[in-house]
Amino acid sequence: MDHDQRFEAAMHHALAEATGPGCPPRLAAAMEYAVFPGGARVRPRLCLAVAAACGNDQPALSTAAAVSIELLHCASLVHDDLPCFDDAPMRRGKPSVHVAFGEDLAVLAGDALIVLAFQTLAREAAHVPERLAALTLTVANAVGGPHGVVAGQAWESEAEIALMDYERAKTGSLFAAATVAGAQAAGAAPLTWLDVGARIGAAFQVADDIHDLIGDADKMGKPIGQDAVHHRPSVAREFGVPAAKKQLEHLVVGAIRSIPPCPGAKQLRQLILREAQNFIPRGIGGIRAA
Amino acid sequence: MDHDQRFEAAMHHALAEATGPGCPPRLAAAMEYAVFPGGARVRPRLCLAVAAACGNDQPALSTAAAVSIELLHCASLVHDDLPCFDDAPMRRGKPSVHVAFGEDLAVLAGDALIVLAFQTLAREAAHVPERLAALTLTVANAVGGPHGVVAGQAWESEAEIALMDYERAKTGSLFAAATVAGAQAAGAAPLTWLDVGARIGAAFQVADDIHDLIGDADKMGKPIGQDAVHHRPSVAREFGVPAAKKQLEHLVVGAIRSIPPCPGAKQLRQLILREAQNFIPRGIGGIRAA
Repeated sequence: MDHDQRFEAAMHHALAEATGPGCPPRLAAAMEYAVFPGGARVRPRLCLAVAAACGNDQPALSTAAAVSIELLHCASLVHDDLPCFDDAPMRRGKPSVHVAFGEDLAVLAGDALIVLAFQTLAREAAHVPERLAALTLTVANAVGGPHGVVAGQAWESEAEIALMDYERAKTGSLFAAATVAGAQAAGAAPLTWLDVGARIGAAFQVADDIHDLIGDADKMGKPIGQDAVHHRPSVAREFGVPAAKKQLEHLVVGAIRSIPPCPGAKQLRQLILREAQNFIPRGIGGIRAA
Repeated sequence: MDHDQRFEAAMHHALAEATGPGCPPRLAAAMEYAVFPGGARVRPRLCLAVAAACGNDQPALSTAAAVSIELLHCASLVHDDLPCFDDAPMRRGKPSVHVAFGEDLAVLAGDALIVLAFQTLAREAAHVPERLAALTLTVANAVGGPHGVVAGQAWESEAEIALMDYERAKTGSLFAAATVAGAQAAGAAPLTWLDVGARIGAAFQVADDIHDLIGDADKMGKPIGQDAVHHRPSVAREFGVPAAKKQLEHLVVGAIRSIPPCPGAKQLRQLILREAQNFIPRGIGGIRAA
């Protein structure tokens, strides 16, 4: 099994625990639908890559960290797609959870996935209890208030958006958590990793803005043009695609330069470049990060 | 400060961490609105009483456990009141969160409170890391799938309700977690406490059924007659108030008899009786638990 297959197996294992005997069947189905088949799984791959770069002495724990981050990401997509937010009909090329199962089950599936994220961490930390509190706080801070994903989404309900707070919270926080949690799971000093994740998160957000402006809805598996519809700030729309692409390159270079000294720094640099190439739409040229 | 005041102070402290500088103001307001002023705070009081009965050698941790359980309870009320579930206009004598702040902020406030529950546990477990994993799992299992509060709510979206699974999940699970977590926070063997909490939870559910049938909406702070409207199973409606009251007494007696040997067993017995007297509507007589 390669890394990706092992990660998917861990996702299936986590879901099986939460949807086992006694679970209402439609809740179980909605949770599975929200998580499989997955999207790009960018955040957990980043988390596992940082853990590997740091020696990964507790593979079960780093996998649990990656799973918890991806579960929280999936939960945020389910809730963000609800009619009271984006009212998105499609996600990952199929009807979104509330369209397929109803709003009630979409709310509950999201809730249950949030809980499962913390359950998964606690379950796998049995052999290394001294790492659990810090990992839980990293993941929780990335999704809760005042600076996490939930806060990012809540900025869209304010009359005035605090732009930096919004972007950092909406996308940056979970990427930053992915790198920090990868280091923490491997017993490495976490804070030096914060910057790497924050920059990759910002780059991903710029790439997403470009996709939303000029991407292909079929390939994305979700509608495009949504930033304009929902009056969301977008670098690509405000400054144009070439400027946005330049900013993306700048952020990726910054992320790579921020990698602290660690056994697997070289492989990690290559992986980040490869992932970044996949971020951006084909047709506007590759990333120059020399 | 007495116990209740100390608990409320800990709730305020937890909320302050999650709604601090950088938090979108309406999200912060919705979260506070959902939590203060509180309801009866039955679950956290039970949790703290069990911790006290077990010696309570880590008061900060038992308080965190009680806070996390109450935050999860508040989150479940916010989401259950949404239009896609009970569509409840009032809660605790004021407009429910989605009426006061909109559905979007009700969804997000609930999400953020779920996250805050796990954040609070992790933050206070710094000095006793070896107790965190078990506590987190107790609390998470009580709210997630397959048997937690979320699963209980999800049974209402099924064509056929598995009655025992439903009642155990919807109310019993968080009461059971309150006693188990109280014991775990104090370093006591947790499993012997499961039965005490499960029985109290079942008693509370019966009391709630009686209230919903013959209670006073003004005193309850929420509409009555909702079990019939939403076709929810109700012991009181099916077998009548006297039979329901008898079952309640039976459950309370069973809970008291299940208390395992511990330093504070006598005080705990008295507290459970006192709380149980408060459950039931005045006018149908006190509980006979002799």
